[in-house]
Amino acid sequence: MNQTKAYAAEAANAPLAPFSFERREVGAHDVLIEILYCGVCHSDVHQARDEWGGSIFPMVPGHEIVGRVVEVGSHVKQFKQGDLAGVGCMVDSCQHCSSCDEGVEQYCEEGFTGTYNGRERETGAPTYGGYASHIVVREEFVLHVSEKLDLARVAPLLCAGITTYSPLRQWKVKAGDRVGVVGLGGLGHMAVKLAAAMGAEVTVFSTSPSKEKDARELGAHKFVVSKDPEAMKAAGNYFDLIINTVSAKIDLTPYLAALRLDGTMVLLGVPPEAPEIHAFNLIAKRRRIAGSLIGGIQETQEMLDFCAEHNIMSDIEMIPMKDINEAYERMVKGDVHYRFVIDLQTL
Amino acid sequence: MNQTKAYAAEAANAPLAPFSFERREVGAHDVLIEILYCGVCHSDVHQARDEWGGSIFPMVPGHEIVGRVVEVGSHVKQFKQGDLAGVGCMVDSCQHCSSCDEGVEQYCEEGFTGTYNGRERETGAPTYGGYASHIVVREEFVLHVSEKLDLARVAPLLCAGITTYSPLRQWKVKAGDRVGVVGLGGLGHMAVKLAAAMGAEVTVFSTSPSKEKDARELGAHKFVVSKDPEAMKAAGNYFDLIINTVSAKIDLTPYLAALRLDGTMVLLGVPPEAPEIHAFNLIAKRRRIAGSLIGGIQETQEMLDFCAEHNIMSDIEMIPMKDINEAYERMVKGDVHYRFVIDLQTL
Repeated sequence: MNQTKAYAAEAANAPLAPFSFERREVGAHDVLIEILYCGVCHSDVHQARDEWGGSIFPMVPGHEIVGRVVEVGSHVKQFKQGDLAGVGCMVDSCQHCSSCDEGVEQYCEEGFTGTYNGRERETGAPTYGGYASHIVVREEFVLHVSEKLDLARVAPLLCAGITTYSPLRQWKVKAGDRVGVVGLGGLGHMAVKLAAAMGAEVTVFSTSPSKEKDARELGAHKFVVSKDPEAMKAAGNYFDLIINTVSAKIDLTPYLAALRLDGTMVLLGVPPEAPEIHAFNLIAKRRRIAGSLIGGIQETQEMLDFCAEHNIMSDIEMIPMKDINEAYERMVKGDVHYRFVIDLQTL
Repeated sequence: MNQTKAYAAEAANAPLAPFSFERREVGAHDVLIEILYCGVCHSDVHQARDEWGGSIFPMVPGHEIVGRVVEVGSHVKQFKQGDLAGVGCMVDSCQHCSSCDEGVEQYCEEGFTGTYNGRERETGAPTYGGYASHIVVREEFVLHVSEKLDLARVAPLLCAGITTYSPLRQWKVKAGDRVGVVGLGGLGHMAVKLAAAMGAEVTVFSTSPSKEKDARELGAHKFVVSKDPEAMKAAGNYFDLIINTVSAKIDLTPYLAALRLDGTMVLLGVPPEAPEIHAFNLIAKRRRIAGSLIGGIQETQEMLDFCAEHNIMSDIEMIPMKDINEAYERMVKGDVHYRFVIDLQTL
């Protein structure tokens, strides 16, 4: 058995604290990874605090994992000891439904297995995530990570990166397209970098005028203060695609009005209250609203390769494991530029 | 000048009554049509009663027009005296914006000119619609109508037909696709006929179990009583496209849940209150909501040709002009199978 050091929440109202558990034995198709860095996603907080319901405790959060392979099963072909490796939001899926066949395991008809707060398909045992010294994952869900990039800054690509890359690709963003990004947080700052690297003209919408400098440094070409009705109006009928990263309930009407004919707004966050959609805004220009969930394994690999090619990484604040509870508090306040990453050497 | 007999509403609270006015002279690019039949659209009622605001009175409604060409201007090339002709919701647009260039004049950046309750681009004079003996329309906005079909039953194709045909084409419905139609009224019954003719498997959603027989006779393969939560649940994750023709505010959640991965619900009606959209339903299967507005002139001609080829016409109740106010009352109650058409010989 693989004794594993970790940090876990014992209950919804408990802070994260040191925890120890046994990972499963390395099976024939498994890869054992020593975790070097793990990004801290907003969904870690939601799930550790059981804000979505149904959380499994004790919980070891973390699904933005990078590390080094220390052992592989006898049938593993794509990884060997010493390779860099990444693990994102999924560690398994049915592998035989039409979604899995199409490489969109995130839409597996039987439901994918979450990296944490899920249950292993075969044993029903809880899954434990990346706030840990090691992880065992079946080969199909392990990603290759380039040696060229700063590993700590790669970690957030496994969730924030793919969640924004996937809709940019699905909606076929190309050079010259006009892409809007609503909200400049963990997801938003990646959307800006990725869309800019694809050659799009990128506009950041933010409530805070103070974010303009950062937005431009990240690669945005334009900045709109979303609280300014005149500025929003001036942005009307313009965008091919708007990536909306905001999880709060906001008035979507001015953003819909900002889409050009046949433009799409993709929602990545789930507001606790459902926003109203004025059908007229859709009908008047054949506009669309869509949702998108992370990305498939093949697309995640493509994203990591794209980032290596274009030297794209997340902007991060590195923290030792013991500071995780303080980091959660700061995230809730939106006080992070733009992603906390845990240095697992500090465990 | 062309003295024209018609029926008009003199004010929002006035019934429609006989009215006389002068059409413009037939210009070099104009076609003068003797109107034979005109369909009665729900939007006629909304506008005649000023329910959307901004109505221009007196108003001669009607934008589902078929008739025979009696005179053409000197530069008209596509029509000659004696031809059958149709006119839909538009009689003009800027003809030089990117939308017009792409043949989607309904999304003209300067706004298209409505067949009635609009203003002529050059003179600012009000436009008067099809509850009239004649109409003068520039050639580019006149459609060819086949002699093969029952002309009265063709009239509703000019609005109800194109409004449903366009999204079926834009979302590339093909044989075997699973298409849902919400609401079995003027638009819905055309959506069923058109989608079935395209080879789709068509399911009608309706609150009234009594509509099943009609739905199947129109060409639907399946019928779901939308008030039955179990039936709605059983329809989950199934449809490629759902055409929602309902203008009332309804709970869209079970319909979104009925879409399969990457499926789209197209809204054709504008509910007075905006429906809430639960983002989770979109995100969980990369689903989309869109709006669609009538169709362009080229696509309208394509639709008329498709209907002639497949022998598709609207199911109608013919009325004399004098019964229009009673017809409005019945339409408001949903008591029409499925479109009233005015016989203009009764003017």
